[in-house]
Amino acid sequence: MHVGIIGGTGHEGRALAARLASAGFDVLVGSRAIDRAQATVAELHAAHPVLLLRAATNRDVVSSCDVVFLSVAFAGAGEILDAHASSFRAGTLVIDVTVPLAFRDGVPTLLEVAEGSAAAFVRARLPREVRLAAAFKTIPASILGRLDSPLECDEFVCGESPEIVAETIALLSRVPTLRLVDAGGLEAAATLERMTALAVAINKRYRKRSARFRVVGI
Amino acid sequence: MHVGIIGGTGHEGRALAARLASAGFDVLVGSRAIDRAQATVAELHAAHPVLLLRAATNRDVVSSCDVVFLSVAFAGAGEILDAHASSFRAGTLVIDVTVPLAFRDGVPTLLEVAEGSAAAFVRARLPREVRLAAAFKTIPASILGRLDSPLECDEFVCGESPEIVAETIALLSRVPTLRLVDAGGLEAAATLERMTALAVAINKRYRKRSARFRVVGI
Repeated sequence: MHVGIIGGTGHEGRALAARLASAGFDVLVGSRAIDRAQATVAELHAAHPVLLLRAATNRDVVSSCDVVFLSVAFAGAGEILDAHASSFRAGTLVIDVTVPLAFRDGVPTLLEVAEGSAAAFVRARLPREVRLAAAFKTIPASILGRLDSPLECDEFVCGESPEIVAETIALLSRVPTLRLVDAGGLEAAATLERMTALAVAINKRYRKRSARFRVVGI
Repeated sequence: MHVGIIGGTGHEGRALAARLASAGFDVLVGSRAIDRAQATVAELHAAHPVLLLRAATNRDVVSSCDVVFLSVAFAGAGEILDAHASSFRAGTLVIDVTVPLAFRDGVPTLLEVAEGSAAAFVRARLPREVRLAAAFKTIPASILGRLDSPLECDEFVCGESPEIVAETIALLSRVPTLRLVDAGGLEAAATLERMTALAVAINKRYRKRSARFRVVGI
């Protein structure tokens, strides 16, 4: 199975690449420009020599991977999806990790998304034959990328159907110290994205960078 | 200091009454009809003889308490607030615990609230001189009312000003085994109410009744 990341050179993307590779996945690190992807892979390999990471263009990721993580700044997501929508293979599982957050005067602000959530925005721009889930919305990139630290939290997975959620949870269960929680249909993404904004605001108030969530009682 | 609960005879209200009284507060249990409040207090006293609980009408709660919890079904909140708005004393701290949830065919559904959240709906119906916070939105009543079990979770407090949030946190810090997290301005209530809907949906999927949240990393 081929796993790839659109936007694998960003803060969140490289953290995701490292964490997925450390869980045993062979990860294609995508970027608009292949040299940027190569630079990121070289840096990640310097820190973690054993990880299976390869550089690719975003287009390569889209056209060759069974599972594609979308990890770009929300502001650029529309353009990237429009550019690549026709290259996705039917049946590809896309996992959206974007959050529509902006910082206004240093204050984290959730952007209004006409579709209701970043995941719904992404869905509207993907071909029908692509299957969509959302995950890794609430874990901070700084925590995700620190491979020597246990994650010690839950991550919420939602998706277009119970089957897609179950498949995504089974896939991501290979990541140690992370418990995956079935958050239901794709409409739950609106809640998860708000929770990220809440965690970022809590970080700011508590002078931390690591606020994340655990569900107690299940 | 006098603490009272509007709607103290409901599922959430009586759990809140028991938990606050067990934390040492002298609690006025309010209801529309005094005999219903008396019946609830008698039941709570039968289970927990030492608790300081007294029956009252909602009107008594509004006109005599320094801290008033609003714990009514969201569908009835407008009517109750309209009936009592003019009886609140200036400076009263109102703590909104309502969540705009309805069950449609057994599926928990968040109601659309024109104001953006139940807390904003409540704010629009309270006199200016009353100060508003929101708390206990995400803890299930069944957990809150089970006094022999530790809460083992966080509860999020948001409010109209940092001072109101700080005061509410200081007040509720008397409740053992509960950590209070500063969730910021009243606009955070929209997120907390969605989190409650998420917890209820998670309960349904995991066949539990106790899903609640803890913030990891602060």
